[in-house]
Amino acid sequence: MTTATLPQPAPFTRDDYTARMRRVVRDAAGAGLSGVIVTPGPDLVWLTGYQPTAITERLTMLILSTDREPTLVVPALERPDAESAEGAGALSMIDWTDGSDPYPVAGDLLTSDGRFGISDSAWAMHVLGLQRTRPATSYQALSECMPMMRAVKDANELARLSLAAEAADATYGEIVQLRFAGRLETEVAADLARLLRQFGHEQVDFTVVGSGPNGANPHHEAGERVIQAGDAVVLDFGGLRYGYGSDTTRTVVVGEPSAEVQEVHDIVRTAQQAGFEAVRPGVPCQQIDRVAREVITKAGYGEQFIHRTGHGIGVTTHEPPYMVEGEERLLEPGMCFSIEPGIYLAGRFGVRIEDIVTVTESAGRRLNNTDHRIRVVE
Amino acid sequence: MTTATLPQPAPFTRDDYTARMRRVVRDAAGAGLSGVIVTPGPDLVWLTGYQPTAITERLTMLILSTDREPTLVVPALERPDAESAEGAGALSMIDWTDGSDPYPVAGDLLTSDGRFGISDSAWAMHVLGLQRTRPATSYQALSECMPMMRAVKDANELARLSLAAEAADATYGEIVQLRFAGRLETEVAADLARLLRQFGHEQVDFTVVGSGPNGANPHHEAGERVIQAGDAVVLDFGGLRYGYGSDTTRTVVVGEPSAEVQEVHDIVRTAQQAGFEAVRPGVPCQQIDRVAREVITKAGYGEQFIHRTGHGIGVTTHEPPYMVEGEERLLEPGMCFSIEPGIYLAGRFGVRIEDIVTVTESAGRRLNNTDHRIRVVE
Repeated sequence: MTTATLPQPAPFTRDDYTARMRRVVRDAAGAGLSGVIVTPGPDLVWLTGYQPTAITERLTMLILSTDREPTLVVPALERPDAESAEGAGALSMIDWTDGSDPYPVAGDLLTSDGRFGISDSAWAMHVLGLQRTRPATSYQALSECMPMMRAVKDANELARLSLAAEAADATYGEIVQLRFAGRLETEVAADLARLLRQFGHEQVDFTVVGSGPNGANPHHEAGERVIQAGDAVVLDFGGLRYGYGSDTTRTVVVGEPSAEVQEVHDIVRTAQQAGFEAVRPGVPCQQIDRVAREVITKAGYGEQFIHRTGHGIGVTTHEPPYMVEGEERLLEPGMCFSIEPGIYLAGRFGVRIEDIVTVTESAGRRLNNTDHRIRVVE
Repeated sequence: MTTATLPQPAPFTRDDYTARMRRVVRDAAGAGLSGVIVTPGPDLVWLTGYQPTAITERLTMLILSTDREPTLVVPALERPDAESAEGAGALSMIDWTDGSDPYPVAGDLLTSDGRFGISDSAWAMHVLGLQRTRPATSYQALSECMPMMRAVKDANELARLSLAAEAADATYGEIVQLRFAGRLETEVAADLARLLRQFGHEQVDFTVVGSGPNGANPHHEAGERVIQAGDAVVLDFGGLRYGYGSDTTRTVVVGEPSAEVQEVHDIVRTAQQAGFEAVRPGVPCQQIDRVAREVITKAGYGEQFIHRTGHGIGVTTHEPPYMVEGEERLLEPGMCFSIEPGIYLAGRFGVRIEDIVTVTESAGRRLNNTDHRIRVVE
């Protein structure tokens, strides 16, 4: 059994949360916004450590603005929970009681004619409530006006992403020792989920097992297909450990690979390596996609690489920055994202190789470190 | 082992979905709306039987209006899933592809200066997208303009709510036979979840085990506290069976109850019964709250009853109608909701008793039927 080698992460401190909130306010001002409004979900977890037990119609709203201290509006009943959040010490709280109208309470915290970024997934009823109570305010979805809000990770976040990647690598190290031939994809997927948890994940987000022709559909998860000798099998799995994401893909083959599988795998491996070597601060995100795609296109498989090259990772397993044509924003030290080119031969097989990579001061550094060579399984 | 006595429900038909959509359009016109916009979630499940695998940033939106047939806007990738929904035959579909702007597609289906009810939980980015593409339209949260849209249940829905309640009652019947003293709250909670599933729930929404002082926090779920002799323990659990909700609460005591626990329990029981007896068509929802609250207030515990008396239930376990002061809408036959007064003595213990009740032509009828007397457990 592979055992963990990295130390447990330190808890996030009040200073960590304060630093994040200050950075968001500064970036908001830079984007021409009066502030940022965050409702329960990944942004709120990242900014405050607070995640309500359930996301309901009751208004919970963090308001960050240039002209006041960070303030969380919470239902009175949920205030004790909110006060026990890791970052609660870094903000003020105002509660409202059932039966009262919470929008004027939140509205009082907004510049009356301000323009605010708001969580994409904030409930329509909440944005409509704010518009009603403060008609001169305006709103824009955070993914449009501040897409990179959580993209740069601090040292503790990087430590957690490394721990998640280490657990995903350990999972891969175990799964390739198990039998594939004759088992259902769903059985292998269940093993992946079990191993991720065994290696410390508190949440499993996906366990893709795409054998043979199923590997040629990048949206396939795992099905009732029996894995057969000769199959290429795409394994793509991840979840959350200590609140931060893992996501890695390797393509294995049941028995010796055919010349074609070997060739396609070599191309994808070269493309993944080329994308990785292009990583450094100041490079546009789309450049990573272009570099990886060029390898595949030159090899004649451009039409069979049917998705973007990568996505960011943090408190969720899919988030900005996206490594995709048209994404001109620049890589910065501390960003973390996947590089996962693939080739999909419809009706036959697929190959994908994916690592999480972080941007250092000068280059890229892989968080996943399992062997890229095609692995023969039984 | 208690076994099910009620028959399985019939599937919902295309006619069921057509009837619901027609009723919504009629009610929308009556409320002065041009139509209703529904995004993934309970309203969409109720109206179409469609639930996307995941709720993401990709726009999925049902548009019901007085001047066109029901139309579902879906991402092209998800269209096959949508077409396989139970109610798909009752509506038209329009898809949009990744990379294109979906808001003009949806906007074309809206009267240009129309006023629309929109799902409370529609993502802010979607309502902001519609406002941008059709600036003369206006929107109001469905819970405000059509709060009772799903409140009146048809016979098939009532049958499902009864099946869910029967399973919750069976769960209670089993849990009180298990040991409480010396076990963690979380262990009892796990038993509740297991039993709910065993009795046919496909989804467990909550398993509250509030022992001793934890019972005095109505938002406590279950923690690492070891249950002790003498504890009052609030058990509040529910989920979905055949797509419809259960939610029941009983307060048990480990060993013989103290005089105080017995007294508080008697008051809550009397309050719950009084609320129940006030149910009949034409009574304002707030009256149920007032009647239950009056019992508790007169007994001197008014300050310790710190939440509303009840909430509706259907395809979700918490929805309108709410039994709360200020809710002046009238009860109608077919409505289903909880009656769940409680008394919470901070730092010591809590008591709550909850049944789901439906409104008949002349009175209330309980869907939960387990004994209200305080139950002694080991």
